[in-house]
Amino acid sequence: MISARGLAAHEAGADLVPWDFERRDVGPGDVQISISHSGVCHSDIHLVRGDWGEQEFPVVPGHEIVGEVVAVGADVTNFSVGDRAGVGVYVDSCRECANCVAGQSNYCLEGMTGTYANPDRRHGGFTQGGYATTIVVDQGYVVHVPESLDPAGAAPLLCAGITLYAPLRRFEAGPGKRVGIVGLGGLGHMGVKFAVAMGADVTVISHSPEKKADAEKLGAQHFLLSTDQDAMDAERYGFDLIINTVSVPLDTNVYLELLGFHGVFVNVGLPGEPFSFDAPRILNQGRSIVGSMIGPVSQLQEMLDFSAEHGIHSEVEVIPANYINDAYGRVIDSDVRYRFVIDGSTI
Amino acid sequence: MISARGLAAHEAGADLVPWDFERRDVGPGDVQISISHSGVCHSDIHLVRGDWGEQEFPVVPGHEIVGEVVAVGADVTNFSVGDRAGVGVYVDSCRECANCVAGQSNYCLEGMTGTYANPDRRHGGFTQGGYATTIVVDQGYVVHVPESLDPAGAAPLLCAGITLYAPLRRFEAGPGKRVGIVGLGGLGHMGVKFAVAMGADVTVISHSPEKKADAEKLGAQHFLLSTDQDAMDAERYGFDLIINTVSVPLDTNVYLELLGFHGVFVNVGLPGEPFSFDAPRILNQGRSIVGSMIGPVSQLQEMLDFSAEHGIHSEVEVIPANYINDAYGRVIDSDVRYRFVIDGSTI
Repeated sequence: MISARGLAAHEAGADLVPWDFERRDVGPGDVQISISHSGVCHSDIHLVRGDWGEQEFPVVPGHEIVGEVVAVGADVTNFSVGDRAGVGVYVDSCRECANCVAGQSNYCLEGMTGTYANPDRRHGGFTQGGYATTIVVDQGYVVHVPESLDPAGAAPLLCAGITLYAPLRRFEAGPGKRVGIVGLGGLGHMGVKFAVAMGADVTVISHSPEKKADAEKLGAQHFLLSTDQDAMDAERYGFDLIINTVSVPLDTNVYLELLGFHGVFVNVGLPGEPFSFDAPRILNQGRSIVGSMIGPVSQLQEMLDFSAEHGIHSEVEVIPANYINDAYGRVIDSDVRYRFVIDGSTI
Repeated sequence: MISARGLAAHEAGADLVPWDFERRDVGPGDVQISISHSGVCHSDIHLVRGDWGEQEFPVVPGHEIVGEVVAVGADVTNFSVGDRAGVGVYVDSCRECANCVAGQSNYCLEGMTGTYANPDRRHGGFTQGGYATTIVVDQGYVVHVPESLDPAGAAPLLCAGITLYAPLRRFEAGPGKRVGIVGLGGLGHMGVKFAVAMGADVTVISHSPEKKADAEKLGAQHFLLSTDQDAMDAERYGFDLIINTVSVPLDTNVYLELLGFHGVFVNVGLPGEPFSFDAPRILNQGRSIVGSMIGPVSQLQEMLDFSAEHGIHSEVEVIPANYINDAYGRVIDSDVRYRFVIDGSTI
């Protein structure tokens, strides 16, 4: 076994504290990564607080992982020691269902194996995540992180980045497409950068007027204040694609009305309350409400390559390990622009 | 002006009674049709009962119209006297918005002009529908009804037919596609016929076990009883496309869970209560909830031609004009297989 140190919660709602644990030995198909950076995702906080139900403790969160390959198994062909590598939201899947076979393992019909707090389907026990010194992952779930990307700014691409990149690609954001991004946080700011790089006409939709300057700085051509009824009315039918990154309930009808012919409202968040909408709002214009959950490993790689090509990274605040509990408080208060990333060398 | 006789409601909730009124003269671009058959759509009933709010009375409902062309204007090139023609849910649109210009006038951004009870944007007054002896419509909103189709069975194609045909085409029902049709009424039975003709693998999903025999008779390969939890569980991820034709609220989450990778739940009905669903149900598999409202005139023609090619018509019960109020009662009681059609010669 391989010694590792992580930041772990020992019970629901507890502070994260340093914890020594073990990773499995490097198997024939495995890659071991020495973690240099690990992004802090809001879902990490939900999980360690027990918001998502019963689970095993202790748990080491983190699924936005960047580091250096320090060992590879005998059957590993795609990675070498010294490569910069990344791991995202999942580290395994059944590999046999129709979706896995089709290369859509993020929608594995047997359920993906999440990077932390999930039963490890092949090695027993539970997975432990990226707030740690090192991790061992099957090569099929590891990606190359281009050297031209800043490793701290690249870490959040592994979850926040792909979460926005995938629906923008699926619904063909590009020249002539009017794209709205609802919410300008860790997810939303990635959506703006990607959509702009793809050539779309991008609007940030927010209830905070102070986000306007940030939206422009990120490259968005327009800003729409959702509390300004006249402005919202003027944008009726104004969008082809709206991606909602907000995880608090909002009035879906209002956003649907912004969509034109066959317009699509994509939801990537997980608000605790159900969505509700009136049927005429989707019958008109043949509109869609679509869910999207990260992307497959192949698309993760595509997204990182696209990011390198276009110089895209997440705007981050790099923190030492001992700041993690303060950082959680600030994430909850939306007091971060736009993502905390843990400096792995401080763990 | 042209004398016409129709079946009209003179106030909300009143019985329909014979009523003499006038159609406009045949203008240069107009087609006058002597109506042989007019289908009875559930929305006719909602409207005359005042379920959809304030409106003008008297009103002659009916937007599933088949008849014979008896006059054409000087500029009409596509229709001749003696042709069999049809008119559907709308008789005009702005003709200038992006959707109209793109041939999607059913989603006219200024609002289509419904075949009845709508302000007539070009001639003043309000439109009057197909429960009548004759109608005058601009040629751009009239279709050819192939002679090989039974005119009574063809009438409901103009609304019920296109309502199902359009989403089946949009989401590419065909060989290898697993299509579910929720509800087996006037809309649902058309969905089964079209989807089967397109080559899809078709399942009727219903809470009524007695619909199973009907489903098979219509050509569906499978029947899924929505109250049978084991059967529903076994069909998790079992569908690519589900079209909901039911206008009473249902548990959307349950139907979403039947969809596999990028599966689509289409809603064509107008239940009075909002739809509600939990975000994880669409995040998983990247599912969609999509609205669909009839189709453009060009697709109406395509659908009629497809129907002629495949011998598809609505299953109808032809009634005389003086049975209309009884028929309304039976529609509300779901006591019709599957559509009433008024014999225009009895008005």
